[in-house]
Amino acid sequence: MEELRPALYLFPVGLSDVGLTEVLPQRNLDLLRGIRHFVVENLRSARRFLRAAHRDFPIDECQFTELNEHTPAGAVESMLAPLLKGQPIGVISEAGCPAVADPGADLVAAAQRRGLEVIPLVGPNSLLLGLMASGFNGQRFAFEGYLPIDEGERRKRLNEMTRRIDRERQTQIFIETPYRNNKLISELASLLPARMLLCVASDLTGPRQSVKTLPLERWRKEKYDYNKIPTIFLLYS
Amino acid sequence: MEELRPALYLFPVGLSDVGLTEVLPQRNLDLLRGIRHFVVENLRSARRFLRAAHRDFPIDECQFTELNEHTPAGAVESMLAPLLKGQPIGVISEAGCPAVADPGADLVAAAQRRGLEVIPLVGPNSLLLGLMASGFNGQRFAFEGYLPIDEGERRKRLNEMTRRIDRERQTQIFIETPYRNNKLISELASLLPARMLLCVASDLTGPRQSVKTLPLERWRKEKYDYNKIPTIFLLYS
Repeated sequence: MEELRPALYLFPVGLSDVGLTEVLPQRNLDLLRGIRHFVVENLRSARRFLRAAHRDFPIDECQFTELNEHTPAGAVESMLAPLLKGQPIGVISEAGCPAVADPGADLVAAAQRRGLEVIPLVGPNSLLLGLMASGFNGQRFAFEGYLPIDEGERRKRLNEMTRRIDRERQTQIFIETPYRNNKLISELASLLPARMLLCVASDLTGPRQSVKTLPLERWRKEKYDYNKIPTIFLLYS
Repeated sequence: MEELRPALYLFPVGLSDVGLTEVLPQRNLDLLRGIRHFVVENLRSARRFLRAAHRDFPIDECQFTELNEHTPAGAVESMLAPLLKGQPIGVISEAGCPAVADPGADLVAAAQRRGLEVIPLVGPNSLLLGLMASGFNGQRFAFEGYLPIDEGERRKRLNEMTRRIDRERQTQIFIETPYRNNKLISELASLLPARMLLCVASDLTGPRQSVKTLPLERWRKEKYDYNKIPTIFLLYS
């Protein structure tokens, strides 16, 4: 077992149900072996991840703490206790990269405030994969998370995004609750300029992966069904 | 040798001089074996990458085309010829992920216009790794590339970034020519609010990796030397 530097290690997890070596470097799996303290978004999926990484992982010798949207803000700081005693901590999200669109960011911020070392590890991130395959500007881009639900706010946000594409050549990236994916595409196609390009990047790294860039006027006529499939949306012109 | 789907495969490359399995999934290396047509940012470094991936890689049987800032825009389309005949193409950048802050985006856009399949693969990306380890908002963020050089334009951009942090809670990410890294930090520390947080993420995945988040008032007193080390800068408050 490798003796690890005491640090907060951020372990990405696969986005879909494929083998770990399809989407993670071997190095990540090797590092896991040296860690016994974990902060995890979901206990069950983190244990499954560890067992997939190493069939013989000594899960019963490990300490797990859950950090997710139910965790009170005041409880985060104390999760660093093992690291303050010199023991490495692993952070494991449910999918994708810890601390990007994920509650782990609070824990990282607390570690940074205390001057503790934070080590981010390589792994799959759907918005980066979507951006790579979109053909859009990768020199300037923004990730906006979810669009506002309120109709007026939503229009305002879409107008602002259109402005930033035109004036700043900034690719706009956002997500939607998966059961509303189809509705979002028809909404974008009806509200935004016909020639604007929409890229729909779906089931990234998964068996049904598809990344398609078309002008909105083509999306209007296109047949598609992204219902309930994790999908990233990108706009550019 | 695996028979590959005809597609444009985007292969990330390491950011620093570490072993490939430290930063790339085994899957990427396996896929390379099935490809004989490559579009590369730099011929020498692409060949080095292929040899590092597989000592016996049949480089002499491969066709390489360079795509970089010297390539005329009109030459990009024809690079897709092998794929139009049903043969997979691999895209290899000099460092990081193809098509993100890199000329590969034009080739991807051309493939998308023709309805060809594009397959992005997982690998290291410095801005994503920096964001993960910064502790900043990963739900909304923007990558701005380089700041403008003209002093007036530069101030205007910094003011706009400050506004977007305050009003939109949007993390601001940017880069600098590496020999000006130190100067940029003192510039930010003197121009921006004392309590704004600056994260400096340097030599990511490399032996001198360091990711440090501090308020600008602390950076003013801090000792640092990031001269000529590839570095990502992130602002938030």
